[in-house]
Amino acid sequence: MKSLFVADIRENQPVDSLFLVTAKNHGVTKGGSGYLTLRLLDRSGEIEARVWERAEVLGREFDRNDFVRVRGQATLYQGKVQIRVQDIARVDESNVATEDFLPKSLYDPDAMAAELVTILRGMKNPHLRALAESFFSDQTFMDLLKRAPAGKTIHHPYLGGLLEHTLSLLKLILKVVENYQGIDVDLLLVGGFLHDIGKVYEFSFDRAVEYTDRGQLLGHLVMEIEIVSEKIKTIPDFPEELAMLVKHMIVSHHGSLEFGSPKLPQTVEAVILHYLDDLDGKIQSIQSLLEKEQGSRWTSFHRAYGRNFFRGPAREEKEG
Amino acid sequence: MKSLFVADIRENQPVDSLFLVTAKNHGVTKGGSGYLTLRLLDRSGEIEARVWERAEVLGREFDRNDFVRVRGQATLYQGKVQIRVQDIARVDESNVATEDFLPKSLYDPDAMAAELVTILRGMKNPHLRALAESFFSDQTFMDLLKRAPAGKTIHHPYLGGLLEHTLSLLKLILKVVENYQGIDVDLLLVGGFLHDIGKVYEFSFDRAVEYTDRGQLLGHLVMEIEIVSEKIKTIPDFPEELAMLVKHMIVSHHGSLEFGSPKLPQTVEAVILHYLDDLDGKIQSIQSLLEKEQGSRWTSFHRAYGRNFFRGPAREEKEG
Amino acid sequence: MKSLFVADIRENQPVDSLFLVTAKNHGVTKGGSGYLTLRLLDRSGEIEARVWERAEVLGREFDRNDFVRVRGQATLYQGKVQIRVQDIARVDESNVATEDFLPKSLYDPDAMAAELVTILRGMKNPHLRALAESFFSDQTFMDLLKRAPAGKTIHHPYLGGLLEHTLSLLKLILKVVENYQGIDVDLLLVGGFLHDIGKVYEFSFDRAVEYTDRGQLLGHLVMEIEIVSEKIKTIPDFPEELAMLVKHMIVSHHGSLEFGSPKLPQTVEAVILHYLDDLDGKIQSIQSLLEKEQGSRWTSFHRAYGRNFFRGPAREEKEG
Amino acid sequence: MKSLFVADIRENQPVDSLFLVTAKNHGVTKGGSGYLTLRLLDRSGEIEARVWERAEVLGREFDRNDFVRVRGQATLYQGKVQIRVQDIARVDESNVATEDFLPKSLYDPDAMAAELVTILRGMKNPHLRALAESFFSDQTFMDLLKRAPAGKTIHHPYLGGLLEHTLSLLKLILKVVENYQGIDVDLLLVGGFLHDIGKVYEFSFDRAVEYTDRGQLLGHLVMEIEIVSEKIKTIPDFPEELAMLVKHMIVSHHGSLEFGSPKLPQTVEAVILHYLDDLDGKIQSIQSLLEKEQGSRWTSFHRAYGRNFFRGPAREEKEG
Amino acid sequence: MKSLFVADIRENQPVDSLFLVTAKNHGVTKGGSGYLTLRLLDRSGEIEARVWERAEVLGREFDRNDFVRVRGQATLYQGKVQIRVQDIARVDESNVATEDFLPKSLYDPDAMAAELVTILRGMKNPHLRALAESFFSDQTFMDLLKRAPAGKTIHHPYLGGLLEHTLSLLKLILKVVENYQGIDVDLLLVGGFLHDIGKVYEFSFDRAVEYTDRGQLLGHLVMEIEIVSEKIKTIPDFPEELAMLVKHMIVSHHGSLEFGSPKLPQTVEAVILHYLDDLDGKIQSIQSLLEKEQGSRWTSFHRAYGRNFFRGPAREEKEG
Amino acid sequence: MKSLFVADIRENQPVDSLFLVTAKNHGVTKGGSGYLTLRLLDRSGEIEARVWERAEVLGREFDRNDFVRVRGQATLYQGKVQIRVQDIARVDESNVATEDFLPKSLYDPDAMAAELVTILRGMKNPHLRALAESFFSDQTFMDLLKRAPAGKTIHHPYLGGLLEHTLSLLKLILKVVENYQGIDVDLLLVGGFLHDIGKVYEFSFDRAVEYTDRGQLLGHLVMEIEIVSEKIKTIPDFPEELAMLVKHMIVSHHGSLEFGSPKLPQTVEAVILHYLDDLDGKIQSIQSLLEKEQGSRWTSFHRAYGRNFFRGPAREEKEG
Repeated sequence: MKSLFVADIRENQPVDSLFLVTAKNHGVTKGGSGYLTLRLLDRSGEIEARVWERAEVLGREFDRNDFVRVRGQATLYQGKVQIRVQDIARVDESNVATEDFLPKSLYDPDAMAAELVTILRGMKNPHLRALAESFFSDQTFMDLLKRAPAGKTIHHPYLGGLLEHTLSLLKLILKVVENYQGIDVDLLLVGGFLHDIGKVYEFSFDRAVEYTDRGQLLGHLVMEIEIVSEKIKTIPDFPEELAMLVKHMIVSHHGSLEFGSPKLPQTVEAVILHYLDDLDGKIQSIQSLLEKEQGSRWTSFHRAYGRNFFRGPAREEKEG
Repeated sequence: MKSLFVADIRENQPVDSLFLVTAKNHGVTKGGSGYLTLRLLDRSGEIEARVWERAEVLGREFDRNDFVRVRGQATLYQGKVQIRVQDIARVDESNVATEDFLPKSLYDPDAMAAELVTILRGMKNPHLRALAESFFSDQTFMDLLKRAPAGKTIHHPYLGGLLEHTLSLLKLILKVVENYQGIDVDLLLVGGFLHDIGKVYEFSFDRAVEYTDRGQLLGHLVMEIEIVSEKIKTIPDFPEELAMLVKHMIVSHHGSLEFGSPKLPQTVEAVILHYLDDLDGKIQSIQSLLEKEQGSRWTSFHRAYGRNFFRGPAREEKEG
Repeated sequence: MKSLFVADIRENQPVDSLFLVTAKNHGVTKGGSGYLTLRLLDRSGEIEARVWERAEVLGREFDRNDFVRVRGQATLYQGKVQIRVQDIARVDESNVATEDFLPKSLYDPDAMAAELVTILRGMKNPHLRALAESFFSDQTFMDLLKRAPAGKTIHHPYLGGLLEHTLSLLKLILKVVENYQGIDVDLLLVGGFLHDIGKVYEFSFDRAVEYTDRGQLLGHLVMEIEIVSEKIKTIPDFPEELAMLVKHMIVSHHGSLEFGSPKLPQTVEAVILHYLDDLDGKIQSIQSLLEKEQGSRWTSFHRAYGRNFFRGPAREEKEG
Repeated sequence: MKSLFVADIRENQPVDSLFLVTAKNHGVTKGGSGYLTLRLLDRSGEIEARVWERAEVLGREFDRNDFVRVRGQATLYQGKVQIRVQDIARVDESNVATEDFLPKSLYDPDAMAAELVTILRGMKNPHLRALAESFFSDQTFMDLLKRAPAGKTIHHPYLGGLLEHTLSLLKLILKVVENYQGIDVDLLLVGGFLHDIGKVYEFSFDRAVEYTDRGQLLGHLVMEIEIVSEKIKTIPDFPEELAMLVKHMIVSHHGSLEFGSPKLPQTVEAVILHYLDDLDGKIQSIQSLLEKEQGSRWTSFHRAYGRNFFRGPAREEKEG
Repeated sequence: MKSLFVADIRENQPVDSLFLVTAKNHGVTKGGSGYLTLRLLDRSGEIEARVWERAEVLGREFDRNDFVRVRGQATLYQGKVQIRVQDIARVDESNVATEDFLPKSLYDPDAMAAELVTILRGMKNPHLRALAESFFSDQTFMDLLKRAPAGKTIHHPYLGGLLEHTLSLLKLILKVVENYQGIDVDLLLVGGFLHDIGKVYEFSFDRAVEYTDRGQLLGHLVMEIEIVSEKIKTIPDFPEELAMLVKHMIVSHHGSLEFGSPKLPQTVEAVILHYLDDLDGKIQSIQSLLEKEQGSRWTSFHRAYGRNFFRGPAREEKEG
Repeated sequence: MKSLFVADIRENQPVDSLFLVTAKNHGVTKGGSGYLTLRLLDRSGEIEARVWERAEVLGREFDRNDFVRVRGQATLYQGKVQIRVQDIARVDESNVATEDFLPKSLYDPDAMAAELVTILRGMKNPHLRALAESFFSDQTFMDLLKRAPAGKTIHHPYLGGLLEHTLSLLKLILKVVENYQGIDVDLLLVGGFLHDIGKVYEFSFDRAVEYTDRGQLLGHLVMEIEIVSEKIKTIPDFPEELAMLVKHMIVSHHGSLEFGSPKLPQTVEAVILHYLDDLDGKIQSIQSLLEKEQGSRWTSFHRAYGRNFFRGPAREEKEG
């Protein structure tokens, strides 16, 4: 576990901690001596650092994308805190806890996975239950599901975020269907479970969340179709029409063509899935922004949603 | 209560029932004798009718927009059923049950109103409770609320539809907030209660659902702002910021400018209200279309949503 | 082979030919006798027909969607030719040549298929060649490919249209790539071959071209991903990255999200495929409209393209 | 009155003047001594300033959002002028002329208000005249109207700008209606008067023009509806239909839903108001940009209008 | 001058008047005798007519697009008035007054032209005056200008409509510029004069207003550029920059790319021209719709503007 | 020919070469001495430079937009290479090779022009051949055509780029038309030749590619109409309809109104021209981006096309 995180570094504080090097540039002072400009990252943020002394020697020891141990002093430069480095050295990946470098869900992945399994095992439709089981028994998939983020930035963008979002959605579905009659709950639950599972391959998330080539060229929606087709083929007597309906849930869950669904939701269940998925993502995203920016009445501008958000008196009171 | 409804009239059936005349045109046959072409409406639909005999005499007795008693025979003409009228006479409005001419909610308006009142009296915020009470004690408003439709065609387009939609939305809100923390439930409930109340003045609904002039020129959203401002002024010490937040719920509930909200939802509660309002309307609208067109796998094209809907095997099975 | 086609029926002509019944409605004349209103279809168009005599007896013999032999006389009614039926009787499907009822390509499907196979066997990339072969050796697929239309109305909407369009596109690709360097021709050819193959399942085309349920709910693009994944799995050592690129050709070939591609073309080859596919479809569609409406300088309004087209003097001269 | 404005400060000039501090950051030089980086504003613009000496002592004396007296020297740094501060001290707001810090209209607010009153007192419709008078006799409102800007940046973004725009619009209306028959001039004038009055509460404009919370959450259009409803209620016998038409002018004046009007203009007068309002704003905005950037043929890019503007030879000649 | 116009024909009225035949179709009655269905047009509207007797003989005498003298009787058929023709015969074009068949402006074209000339001769800029004169002295152009409509349907769609719109626009410009300083009035006037002159070739308007081939393929905007280029070349020493600015007025007057202007207005004058042109067209169009539909509070739906219009009490009062 | 280009300058390298000065700013060091900050450009890119010594004296010798000879040393500053200038002096334009400062096509302009002439002389239509010849014999035009770029940034943005694009398009047309029947090849070739020729006046390209005033205010499309009208007038008996069709090719070649074509393509030839023009530009633009960024799998974000591009394994292999 890291001793000090970027977000906690204050002016004049001594620094001794692990970071990931995301940029490394050489410079020459007016006096002619070399120096290094670095960007250092951990899960709480990024900070700039300068190596003024022994820059050439120290610089030979590490590269961009390496983990390093940095010792130095925090100083203010042009109104921003940066680290004046006294010593820096490469650290082997095996000595680093990934969680220090990627933010992660506040909830325990195993507990979340258990709750999700319980909900889906409660379905009445034996074919859909069998489909869910085919994923539960796929250990590689389950391990990825417990770690994958739901996105790079927009909502649930942290380790375990995909599972957290999926579980929240399933619980939301269970509540919402109580209000209506004639909904095919099992179809809706399976749709909720599978709608984003392609994200386990759309992103790589070892040191930072990045799109994979497949993620860029095919997208999670198309990869989900492939994965689900594959699984269904392993289940005896899976009804063809049911398979089509499950895939339609996936194909249409973005809700409109311009958001990347090649088909509009054309069943009640697909319409509901689209709304609740979107709503769950937005609530998480807005709440997390409000939490991050406590103390101000208006959040900064949320680029994806095109607006600022207002905290409101009830929340202010609660936050004291 | 009417004896026979338009939707139930079959070829060759004798007809004797009350209708509203929505069109009345004179014609002359090739042989030179006059006849009448009528359109007759009740809550179940519209049908064409012809008066071939005594057209001149009978035609003097009634006009467009009158209720009439019609006796005759159902026949097929160009593939459609129409009524060949033998006798027709004006009927006084006092002898007509409005419900025969306007479709109405399947639920009892008084029971729905009582449930709505109970939910809103459960709010903790005394100011919002007082605001709700100011509506409950306004008898004129409550009477309108029990009768108003939620629209002309898109969703809940029948007497009591506004109340049915509002109540369903409140119950949905209560379920959804269980899934999240930090939501201002009372603000959300009051927003759900008030978001469409302007519709009691946006439409007239005595013989058919029509837009009023104010409805056309101002819209329900703007009228709601006026109504709510008015009510808030009658409540001592209503906090100004809370008033602003309630109005923001109304102002933003259509979710985007191009759908007629002059402001985007900028609080978590306003975002949730928009989604759940939209979802509740869509579910009702799609389910009612599926119900109306039982027997076909695909519904006819839903103009407002721009697509057909698929019934699905679960629903087919249930419907037998 | 039918003796007389709808498009050739003229006023006062005697009629004796086979048709498909697409509508059948009962009526009653003012005089009280029953009659039938029919719509009769063959590959050249649709025509209205009336059975005035023995309507009840004749009407019991056939239903909508049946093939029938019709004898009667062509007459003008309200400016349009219709058939006054003297005799009508059901004909067994086995006695009907489907090609009489669905328009078909002017080119021989076997010859087109042979040319397509030759082109694709000329590819240098052994993996892509193997992928193509996996389709060639799938007899069911090849039979469907030879019959499938490329659409219901927009372009190549006739039996064999999909193959005609695919072949034209491959030949166009071969010409275009001569003008540029550094294009991966084989990838482009395979993309051209596979970009629309899902249409063999998106449509049913036994008596008329209709969307299948899968076609409506999933779309041809998503079905192609499934089909291609399947085939690739049967080919040993197919490189994973190549598979991804082939699928990207399919996923992006509509060129933009609002036209149903969940991803934009992100390789030069995908960009080219999108343009040439779109261009080939448009040329066929416009030329066929000009041909159909010979004699007028402007075509009727082309709904899908949102404009009329101008014939131009060169074409007029050629058509003499 | 300030002695020296930001826009007039030149390299090497001694500085002694009042400013508003809009940013204040601490730094540490490589040598280890502290310094301050400031941003100083007045109505003519913003400038950067550095305190290199006695930074700690001087920095204790003032904060962001304070008015200060600054003595120092203008120098060039990276191609931009900045102030090297020798002395800086807080100044009490009572010793500051607000007009030095917010740009204001070139026209006298009292004279503009008088002209506006005269125009509106010339209306023939007694109800609309009474409505106008109800605003004239509201001293708080009239004081705000004389000071409010018409916007933050787009058009008339300075003290008195709202009144200047409103008056210009009324005069424009009077000219335009001469060209047409059958226009309800009084309705148009009242619409012109009221269409933006909500801006007196949409913005705060004490030290800088900022959106208020209500401005952000409700918008000026909705606030105008509230204000006008309020005033109308104080006028005996104000015809209900006239009230509706006045409000429609307000509700629709942005001209389209995507620009924030929940209803399209549906009377001739509302259509005219929308066009003339938009035109007046655009003319002011473009002319002020041309004036500000005298000497160049093309203005810089106007973000709100999405283009550059061309000065043209006539204007160039006039400007000499 | 025609004796009776379509708009004035009432049920049972005898008819004897001239019409243009716009459709002519042959039919056969159930009894086997031939009849003709016609559409007859004059400037006030279109009406259906039937020839039941001597149809074959009479039908040989005339064709679609001929002028005819029709004698018969007005009767009601399916709620619409139609003419039962007793006699019909071709009339030579030389015996027909075009104004009876095309609606025309209420204003005298010569008087309008004179007023337009006077306004433009008042310009101070000698080059622009010379440009205007080059059009005044072009007799062919002036004759067309006096007759051309401003459109097929949207605004000023009648003979002389182009001149009426142009003159109204010039007068509007003269009024509006009084309200602003620094506008190049002459440039604006010339822009107003020339912005639509291409319409004299975009439409043919001998018997009905139709698009010409050039009108369809090039559009009036592009034709104006050609015409103005041509004229400018005949004027000695016309400054090149001024020519460019005049053309920019034309090129940008539709105001946005999606309305067919390849460039946005980039001078103040071009911005003003776009607004006033659009406003003048809309006012005429709405007022004419209100006039045509006197008696109803709401007009029918205006397709081009996407809404109904409300008459308002002031207008109702005036109209009595 | 320049000795050293910006793109080749490396840290610590001595510099002695010619550049264009695009920015020149004065600064003062903390020590109080003056210095200069410059931006220097050649065809390969831009670089920053500093004059620390004798800044005042050297600075008097040259200005922005001058060509200069610079001697100094390349150093790293904040991670970027810049030039520390020791000597700098103005160089007369006559001593500078323009090609050193503007990028140019890899192909010989005379050879390209010759090929283009040959293709167009192969047309069968004598009128279109004459039209082409009227351009070939216009030496001023041909000289401009050989030098003009096809754009500022998007595609073929270098000297000779317009000719390179035009020629590539003509060759592409010749190949594509082999695949279809009934295309008017000559019309298509002339359209391809003329579709962008207005760009020779839309841009100035002496020292850098810039829009001219006419380019900004009229656009190349409108200027082409003028040029082509002019040329056609010099050709005896050029058929009017053919002239219209040629102009339609130009007017519609951007393919849609929002991309600046006032008319949609309404002939088959205009449709084809639009597609092939767009495709040729995109291929060049993407390939050049891939070439420039060799070594990375994904290109940087292409702003005009709104995406990154993927290199793909075939290209990677070829590039080694």
